[in-house]
Amino acid sequence: RRGEMAKSTQLIDNEVFRAFATYAGIVLLKMMLMSLITAYFRITRKAFVNPEDTASFGKGESAKKYLRTDPDVERARRGHLNDLENIVPFVGIGLLYALSGPELSTALLHFRIFTGARIFHTFAYLMAIPQPCRGLSWAVGYSVTFSMAYRVLKTAWLL
Amino acid sequence: RRGEMAKSTQLIDNEVFRAFATYAGIVLLKMMLMSLITAYFRITRKAFVNPEDTASFGKGESAKKYLRTDPDVERARRGHLNDLENIVPFVGIGLLYALSGPELSTALLHFRIFTGARIFHTFAYLMAIPQPCRGLSWAVGYSVTFSMAYRVLKTAWLL
Amino acid sequence: RRGEMAKSTQLIDNEVFRAFATYAGIVLLKMMLMSLITAYFRITRKAFVNPEDTASFGKGESAKKYLRTDPDVERARRGHLNDLENIVPFVGIGLLYALSGPELSTALLHFRIFTGARIFHTFAYLMAIPQPCRGLSWAVGYSVTFSMAYRVLKTAWLL
Repeated sequence: RRGEMAKSTQLIDNEVFRAFATYAGIVLLKMMLMSLITAYFRITRKAFVNPEDTASFGKGESAKKYLRTDPDVERARRGHLNDLENIVPFVGIGLLYALSGPELSTALLHFRIFTGARIFHTFAYLMAIPQPCRGLSWAVGYSVTFSMAYRVLKTAWLL
Repeated sequence: RRGEMAKSTQLIDNEVFRAFATYAGIVLLKMMLMSLITAYFRITRKAFVNPEDTASFGKGESAKKYLRTDPDVERARRGHLNDLENIVPFVGIGLLYALSGPELSTALLHFRIFTGARIFHTFAYLMAIPQPCRGLSWAVGYSVTFSMAYRVLKTAWLL
Repeated sequence: RRGEMAKSTQLIDNEVFRAFATYAGIVLLKMMLMSLITAYFRITRKAFVNPEDTASFGKGESAKKYLRTDPDVERARRGHLNDLENIVPFVGIGLLYALSGPELSTALLHFRIFTGARIFHTFAYLMAIPQPCRGLSWAVGYSVTFSMAYRVLKTAWLL
């Protein structure tokens, strides 16, 4: 009895939930990686925004010239913000979806397509691959989240 | 027994959790809608930020003039960021709140007021309705999230 | 039986989950506080972005001069965005981590270090404390989230 009760609170034993935890972990780590990419560009391009960040380059005017924007830094930042706008809803809606009792195969299909689309989106953004590559990968991820939201609302609906 | 055990892992059977899933789904979809509104303004106002997005308008200087900011695009983007700043904490705190065992009627009151306030906030922002409309709708949503956080901390407190 | 079944759906009875709810509540409230700090600087520095927000300062040119950026406002906004980029992944990954059945003491160590690091990060950002203070506090929080993600992926892995 005890073992069972303990288990029943461990969502992590549910296969759909395990799949969700795996893919949510992967896309959240991918999103966090954008911070490192932005920092890499800030340091190599010497383009900062906070005066205290340029103090090591000297004082006064010599450091001030590094308080500037750089196209690569701004591109990485836009990719990061796009992740926040798309990966965060995926994690929120995906959690509710995983708890709504879908088939494992259907759930895996959703999680895999979303994760693949967002990884491709990051490459398309950072490497400035010609459109409609980035736009399409964005739309694929968006549609997957929408499809999960539809099931969540259909299953849970209590207004 | 099996049925019961299976059920017990299905949070979706809990009425408060179903209500949370419904309202969280609605506000997350509303937040995602901001992407489409921004894209709509970018395309109709011809105001882009990535050079690869203007390639279909021709090459060189003729395309470069569409790399610009537009007041409507920026307004939609600010509305989107404001949603991230407010709807994401609502979803995170609301999930913990739903699991803290509140009365269904109290929970519904919180979820409904927040959702109404944020939908109104979006209209107030996009249509530039005179203040304090937008400010008040922001404050209402903020207060609801604060009230839920208070209950979560009171119920769960383990520092 | 009934009591037990009811309990089993109440994650809030699980000690690790209670600790997570406490710290997630604290850091989410801290993130929300950034909105108030930005609003405080906007009002005291008279630096707004929406024309409808300056209407109370008069009409036409007299109000238009308050549509400007201010270093303190921008600093608070950057702190807020940095919170979104770091606290949101912590809450998402932390929830999965709390459900992966870690030791309470290990979990508390993660939650406490992250929360302390992020509170310090906010002070370092707002008060422009010389580097590497802000950078280090960011790295500490980042590493804690990474450590939790490692355990989530190791425990849940189902690709």
